[in-house]
Amino acid sequence: MVNEPHSASNGSASSRSDGSSSGSEGSKDSSRCSTPVLDAERHERLREKMRRRYDSGDKWFSLEFFPPRTANGAVNLISRFDRMGMGGPLFIDVTWHPAGDPGSDKETSSMIIANTAVNYCGLETILHMTCCNQTKEEITGHLQKAKRLGLKNIMALRGDPIGEEWEEEVEGFNYAVDLVKHIRCEFNDYFDICVAGYPKGHPEAESYEADLRHLKEKVSAGADFIITQLFFRSETFLAFMKDCQAIGITCPIVPGIFPIQGYHSLRQLVKLSKLEVPQEIKEVIEPIKDNDAAIRNYGVELAVSMCRELLDSGMVSGLHFYTLNREVATTEILKRLGIWKEDPRRPLPWAVSAHPKRRVEDVRPIFWASRPKSYIHRTQEWDDFPNGRWGNSSSPAFGELKDYYLFYLKSKSPREELLKMWGEELMSEESVFEVFTCYISGEPNREGQKVTCLPWNDDPLAAETNLLKEQLEKVNRRGILTINSQPNINGKPSTDPIVGWGPSGGYVFQKAYLEFFTSSENITALLKVLKTKKYELRVNYHIVNVRGENITNAPDLQPNAVTWGIFPGREIIQPTVVDPVSFMYWKDEAFALWIEQWAKLYEEESPSRMIIQYIHDNYYLVNLVDNEFPLENCLWQVMEDTFELLNCPTEQ
Amino acid sequence: MVNEPHSASNGSASSRSDGSSSGSEGSKDSSRCSTPVLDAERHERLREKMRRRYDSGDKWFSLEFFPPRTANGAVNLISRFDRMGMGGPLFIDVTWHPAGDPGSDKETSSMIIANTAVNYCGLETILHMTCCNQTKEEITGHLQKAKRLGLKNIMALRGDPIGEEWEEEVEGFNYAVDLVKHIRCEFNDYFDICVAGYPKGHPEAESYEADLRHLKEKVSAGADFIITQLFFRSETFLAFMKDCQAIGITCPIVPGIFPIQGYHSLRQLVKLSKLEVPQEIKEVIEPIKDNDAAIRNYGVELAVSMCRELLDSGMVSGLHFYTLNREVATTEILKRLGIWKEDPRRPLPWAVSAHPKRRVEDVRPIFWASRPKSYIHRTQEWDDFPNGRWGNSSSPAFGELKDYYLFYLKSKSPREELLKMWGEELMSEESVFEVFTCYISGEPNREGQKVTCLPWNDDPLAAETNLLKEQLEKVNRRGILTINSQPNINGKPSTDPIVGWGPSGGYVFQKAYLEFFTSSENITALLKVLKTKKYELRVNYHIVNVRGENITNAPDLQPNAVTWGIFPGREIIQPTVVDPVSFMYWKDEAFALWIEQWAKLYEEESPSRMIIQYIHDNYYLVNLVDNEFPLENCLWQVMEDTFELLNCPTEQ
Repeated sequence: MVNEPHSASNGSASSRSDGSSSGSEGSKDSSRCSTPVLDAERHERLREKMRRRYDSGDKWFSLEFFPPRTANGAVNLISRFDRMGMGGPLFIDVTWHPAGDPGSDKETSSMIIANTAVNYCGLETILHMTCCNQTKEEITGHLQKAKRLGLKNIMALRGDPIGEEWEEEVEGFNYAVDLVKHIRCEFNDYFDICVAGYPKGHPEAESYEADLRHLKEKVSAGADFIITQLFFRSETFLAFMKDCQAIGITCPIVPGIFPIQGYHSLRQLVKLSKLEVPQEIKEVIEPIKDNDAAIRNYGVELAVSMCRELLDSGMVSGLHFYTLNREVATTEILKRLGIWKEDPRRPLPWAVSAHPKRRVEDVRPIFWASRPKSYIHRTQEWDDFPNGRWGNSSSPAFGELKDYYLFYLKSKSPREELLKMWGEELMSEESVFEVFTCYISGEPNREGQKVTCLPWNDDPLAAETNLLKEQLEKVNRRGILTINSQPNINGKPSTDPIVGWGPSGGYVFQKAYLEFFTSSENITALLKVLKTKKYELRVNYHIVNVRGENITNAPDLQPNAVTWGIFPGREIIQPTVVDPVSFMYWKDEAFALWIEQWAKLYEEESPSRMIIQYIHDNYYLVNLVDNEFPLENCLWQVMEDTFELLNCPTEQ
Repeated sequence: MVNEPHSASNGSASSRSDGSSSGSEGSKDSSRCSTPVLDAERHERLREKMRRRYDSGDKWFSLEFFPPRTANGAVNLISRFDRMGMGGPLFIDVTWHPAGDPGSDKETSSMIIANTAVNYCGLETILHMTCCNQTKEEITGHLQKAKRLGLKNIMALRGDPIGEEWEEEVEGFNYAVDLVKHIRCEFNDYFDICVAGYPKGHPEAESYEADLRHLKEKVSAGADFIITQLFFRSETFLAFMKDCQAIGITCPIVPGIFPIQGYHSLRQLVKLSKLEVPQEIKEVIEPIKDNDAAIRNYGVELAVSMCRELLDSGMVSGLHFYTLNREVATTEILKRLGIWKEDPRRPLPWAVSAHPKRRVEDVRPIFWASRPKSYIHRTQEWDDFPNGRWGNSSSPAFGELKDYYLFYLKSKSPREELLKMWGEELMSEESVFEVFTCYISGEPNREGQKVTCLPWNDDPLAAETNLLKEQLEKVNRRGILTINSQPNINGKPSTDPIVGWGPSGGYVFQKAYLEFFTSSENITALLKVLKTKKYELRVNYHIVNVRGENITNAPDLQPNAVTWGIFPGREIIQPTVVDPVSFMYWKDEAFALWIEQWAKLYEEESPSRMIIQYIHDNYYLVNLVDNEFPLENCLWQVMEDTFELLNCPTEQ
């Protein structure tokens, strides 16, 4: 939000009692819920989370982004969401760009960016929405779509009139307050509504006082909280906040912070917002206006000191940042303020979606551990999540994944970079082994390039995988092409920085897991080893090729829990399972990634492409679970025994 | 079964293909099931279990009982079922006494005894049923009732004709084969059907060969297996078995073993069955006919050696015992044969019901740990069991328990014995403390009487409770009247003889649990202790009085898992929970037992009765869970701290 014309309407405020008492979706949440509640906040709506922070005095922040202009920009923005999500924002918001077809299905639309943030990045998200120059039907359509996608929060704005002249439409949406009323009228209490506040008064308002009254109207019409326009001095906000309280505005008011990040962006913003930059700031900036780094450093200093003043005032617990879609300055400010969560507690071992429908989700197959967005995509039509799904007799019925082009499923790296990492030209299967080995070891490949991702892992090694690095490197060199693994854990505190998750005071457990592709010769030896007395009751295996030929010793197609946690006053949580049924869906995806993400980098008929195609056609996908979680992981010994058998086949 | 007239019908055998392919209930079981399968047999029907034993060569036994004559006899028989069930019979069967109104709801009827064995004792049960002198409607009615009660197996018999003359009815049920056909016709594959075989031929048959043909007709009509009439020499059975095979009878044939237990019972049996006792047996018995112990010893020897011959033949894996409702001889024979399971593996920490509807049950509140029959009774109307019930948002809606008179819920001890244990006359609350203390310690009370049960515990201390004996004794002396407890367990093997359960290769865990009644003065001190920093996050508590005044620190009414197990290739099992909602149902039952089982032993208005009534009206029921299962149980320290506070109230 940069500029939001205020309401000049004098209509009497519609009274609304405490929002938490009405609304069918909201009230359900307070009853005994169907799955163990690990994280109370997961079941709360945004206004409740905010209220909880205000009550407890815990400091928090939120982040504003605008939709990207290009498809590549969208891919980048989503990985920025993932990275900045690590810092633990209470929410993010996505602005509404009327010129960019904001309600459409384009990957750059406001609607789709917000959808991705909620569903695929697991971020509590506010979607901005403007109302002027739109029909009631258009607006209702946008709101219905937002609801359908799982969005729960709207920032209700007027938006800029088209052209110079501003004409009020009778019965139309002339002001933000009209949109607030419309949302409450049509959607009752479903959405949390945010409105804009202007610490200096709206530039079009008759007066500062008149603008305050308009703000109060918006709140009375049903807004749950206020985010302010940017300002340059903490006194400006604190005075505004007192004035709001004086006229009876009691909802949370979140100050909007604009870190100065460059000369031109500041000038443009000032022009749009019609704000005046204080003289003391101008005096610092003008002399360094061509030195971007210097301006950014100054901006960071300025923001940090202003934020400190706000937090120290005791009137502010949350800060809203206008990021301009950039990462560095905001992250630095947050870290210096100490409100960036360096080690955010994982609520579950995997990234939780913020869709209200998925709040009961508490178990997933381990196969998608590195591809959570794909898992969410393929299960989006599921009506319920386990308990429910994984204890159910019906097959999980995953949606197909043919949509590798979807921007939130695409690799973050462009083709040229992938080729540098995975080889411009492959000589043999061994070239592929080397790529896997370099990914694990972190050593550069022959061309001196680090391999930071694989088709199955778009991110560097997880911290817990690092624990297994040495052994993984060894087996990958030998053509055991690992794509997923976890160490066994026998009751570490849930606060453990590497393997912990869930609320504090609990204990987490894991069975050792290893998943890899390998050749059919290796499979023959591996199977002999797995069938020896030493392992047959201890290790569960699933072995499958691209044609679905399947070898397993799993009993009765039952899921095997491989991650679980015990918490005070709770049922057992078992968030990750090895499920034989879903493994068959995963294998389609895992094999397809060889072709979709790797083979297709090369010309058709090229030797490189044929090598990948050969692996796709002939290798097996294997998963192994060592059920003896209190003992030393035996899977490395299984590998050793297999290699030994391959070396001396006649001796066995 | 003592005497079963055979079929003389020559009707062609109705052909029936393999039973396992038809039948809606049966086929469902093979699909992926809704709860983790711990014990494959739990989901199998009797014929499958039997087939599995035949295939594996594992030896097994089964036990035959007849319905009791009196209500007291029924109470005794049910506790005999519980005790003999410990030995691990593959099934028991209950004979059909036409004279005893066998299909009625009387506690002594065949139907109700079989119902109790299945539902309350968790025993796979065959109900005998005879057909002669009954209408089709009567028979169908009995079968429908059996099905409704969860009975799955019928022994189809003709029964004795009334009076001396035997008249064949056209269209009627003249022979067992008619009943077999009727069951298959009306109930398809729902029931497993057993029929009787006569190793010496039926006394009414034209010939041994003709009798074999009649047996084959019964099998062809749909019988799943055969149990034989008793015999005195192993050769008799082995020859019979070969003859059966020779004419194409391929179903299992189980030899019926009759341990001679007394002179008169042998004579009566021989008269009914029209069998001849071999000379060598007569010669031994006649001289000792007045010495019961000697005859029983001889009978045990004889049965052991005959059973050994049968098992050694390689043709027999299971033995069926005519117990005559007695325990000693049969148990001794089984122990000497080595087929009595001294330490039967518990499939779950609590006794599993054998009702087909409850096969998915895998979690219960810990409160009913010592009253499993009451839990089953109160939840019999539940359509589903968890996952389902305990993860569900609705309250469990327990049936009320006002039926303390029900024979399977009654104390095994008569009033006089209870008075001796619990005090002919109580002096004060301290007299009650003493009763509890004696129950825990095993020491005799003032009258020199051991206290072997309490209203909440009809059995002596469980093995795992014994681990806590010393501390329990101490706190009971001080008026902490414990009725339920378990130690914490941090990953013991599932085969542990005291705390183990479930299949081998797993690990079991427990949180320490303590449940007790105590005075309101103690509660005040206890609550102060529980709210100290040391315990507030570690110990969950529920404290309630008879009026339902309730104090708890449990979050969101969620169940707390207090027993769980991790097994190879399985999901986590959490069979026991402390559930805040069901605790309010349990407290009604727990408080009512003071009155129903204890106060009512005394005259109205008597001081003893008033003491119990006072406790009922004023004490609180408390449960405590120590969530820190890997550390030393802190609940004893909680008690210590409470006592200390009570001793020096001013210091705190």
